[in-house]
Amino acid sequence: MTSTLITPAPDSLSALETPCAVLDLDRMERNIGRLREHLDGLGVSLRPHLKTAKSVEIAQRVMTAPAGPATVSTLKEAEQFAQAGVTDLTYAVGIEPTKLQRVIALRAAGADIAVLLDSVEQAHIVVAASRDSGEPIPALIEIDCDGHRSGIDPADAERITAIGRLLAEGASLRGVLAHAGASYGARSETELRACADNERDAVVRAANTLREAGLPCPVVSAGSTPTAHFADDLTGVTEIRAGVFVFFDLVMAGLGVCQIDDIALSVMATVIGHQVDKGWIIVDAGWMAMSRDRGTAKQSVDQGYGVVCDQNGKPYPGLIMADANQEHGVLAIRNDSTAALPDLQIGDRVRILPNHACATGAQHDRYHVIRGSSGHIEAEWPRFGGW
Amino acid sequence: MTSTLITPAPDSLSALETPCAVLDLDRMERNIGRLREHLDGLGVSLRPHLKTAKSVEIAQRVMTAPAGPATVSTLKEAEQFAQAGVTDLTYAVGIEPTKLQRVIALRAAGADIAVLLDSVEQAHIVVAASRDSGEPIPALIEIDCDGHRSGIDPADAERITAIGRLLAEGASLRGVLAHAGASYGARSETELRACADNERDAVVRAANTLREAGLPCPVVSAGSTPTAHFADDLTGVTEIRAGVFVFFDLVMAGLGVCQIDDIALSVMATVIGHQVDKGWIIVDAGWMAMSRDRGTAKQSVDQGYGVVCDQNGKPYPGLIMADANQEHGVLAIRNDSTAALPDLQIGDRVRILPNHACATGAQHDRYHVIRGSSGHIEAEWPRFGGW
Repeated sequence: MTSTLITPAPDSLSALETPCAVLDLDRMERNIGRLREHLDGLGVSLRPHLKTAKSVEIAQRVMTAPAGPATVSTLKEAEQFAQAGVTDLTYAVGIEPTKLQRVIALRAAGADIAVLLDSVEQAHIVVAASRDSGEPIPALIEIDCDGHRSGIDPADAERITAIGRLLAEGASLRGVLAHAGASYGARSETELRACADNERDAVVRAANTLREAGLPCPVVSAGSTPTAHFADDLTGVTEIRAGVFVFFDLVMAGLGVCQIDDIALSVMATVIGHQVDKGWIIVDAGWMAMSRDRGTAKQSVDQGYGVVCDQNGKPYPGLIMADANQEHGVLAIRNDSTAALPDLQIGDRVRILPNHACATGAQHDRYHVIRGSSGHIEAEWPRFGGW
Repeated sequence: MTSTLITPAPDSLSALETPCAVLDLDRMERNIGRLREHLDGLGVSLRPHLKTAKSVEIAQRVMTAPAGPATVSTLKEAEQFAQAGVTDLTYAVGIEPTKLQRVIALRAAGADIAVLLDSVEQAHIVVAASRDSGEPIPALIEIDCDGHRSGIDPADAERITAIGRLLAEGASLRGVLAHAGASYGARSETELRACADNERDAVVRAANTLREAGLPCPVVSAGSTPTAHFADDLTGVTEIRAGVFVFFDLVMAGLGVCQIDDIALSVMATVIGHQVDKGWIIVDAGWMAMSRDRGTAKQSVDQGYGVVCDQNGKPYPGLIMADANQEHGVLAIRNDSTAALPDLQIGDRVRILPNHACATGAQHDRYHVIRGSSGHIEAEWPRFGGW
């Protein structure tokens, strides 16, 4: 019988309250090293997206230099990382008037932050703000390479040039940027390589459109984690943005961008019940701890709310979090598996690998950092949220 | 052209940075009043679930008295609300050994917190902790009324009695508890009423099993938001737990438990782009602000990531957030609607009603409180997360 009086070493995983986020630093460093080596070989720089981890300690490890370059998805990220000394920032979400005041404040405080836009309307807004603040605000033009979200058709030379001209004259034209969001839906290595080529072609075409109009285009920015890893020719691209590679996740494993044992982020949970007739084990991590992200639902192997590992990070054959309520996770054997349910008792710990590291990380306010299967906690790194 | 220098009144919605959570207090008070009146008529007390709002200010308004009763889903909630003077608490997630230490600390500090369990193994653990701490810990036995999660089959008199006896002798037997989670999948008012009757019957049967064995069962606890609203006979039930009714959401509206204009929580967002050819408006609220919850996907009307309203809270006909990335929302007209896309410009504000208020609320650290369509901010209420 488990006693309530057993007290594990305070620096061990066993001492943590669950649910909580566990980060395997060995895996993270391997993931970072792999992408850096790949991009070094292609001759482009890495501008990592810091939206996945939202942690100064992790930013310091994923960036190639303490001041950046880096990409952010919110001005909160920009402000937090700027305070920590990161000065080369791209805010890679379309700009609107209210946010320009925070951008101007960041620039006044010494951060070289560039904004993103895809319309003449926004260009006029950035020009007006540059004029009002007395300092040209650098902006990138967003190019839509695959119809998944924002951006301008790379064939729309007229709009690209019109925006470029407005920015060059009244603000600062920093360059062009594309994001191959469609790569998340690729079904094969061939499709992933095609996404990478298409992203490169789109953004390089837009850069050439600007240059042919006599406009500057110093930055030609591309990248998503899948295309960053499968690109084999980035001629004309100056930098690659990627974010989730720092942790990887089950969606990336399902795409073939990583292996399951590359996934550095997991959620530790404790067994709180059984439904023997149904083949269920109940744990204290539900969707609040995992997020509601079900990214693998559209992939060939649906991993539910996550792949279940033992406390040392080794997956149990076929065991997934099949369903989740707010603070309950239902562990069960995946439909396509003949594995047996492991014999887990009330109070036993498991670690669950997430569908989408950006979404799961966001449910936690800190990372408990370990190396490999030691179970020894090396550090606790805070993480911020909000806007 | 929008100028960056326009400064709205600091206490108006227009002055807020987006995305952010907006709470309509008129709607919330109406929702609370409606359920209280219904339960008063049925002669049962309300033990509201505080997991939806995680706010002391909202807890004070939803509870029938400052000290409770109330329900929590995490010990963090228990600790936060106990500090704010709530002393009558049920922690309605199965207990495990590590958490008992925090329960004992809460009890020692004056909170009457009861735990939940559904196994002999857990009963032994609670008995051991009661013995070790020198104070009997009150526990409820979880009853499974519809097979959706945890709990004991109400027909399993042997297990219910065995656990009841262990608790009565070595801890404190507080009663029985059921949660009709299956009611979220009900398709009609008839089905909702059947869920409510079934939940009542299951938990009353378990209570009678204990009493017939000569054991006490002072608390007979039932409830989910759908069954709480559709129950018309709660004979034998002593208390009802419900949580999401305080805000309501699109899943509850889809079930017919509320109307869309009862939904008190929304996320305010700003237009940051257009994809005219596709009929898309892009806003700065993505799944990070809305959560990944897609609860209406299984209902007859799939509302995407949410129903889009103007800044005053009036829905645009047919307009939903059809897709979302981390910080981008894609607004489009729902497939079954012939409405026209509204003419929204860069910088315009919208408010988006969520699928699931518990999940969306959790993405934010505060509520901006308004009344009706005034746009005047009455208060800013903090909200906590974590475990």
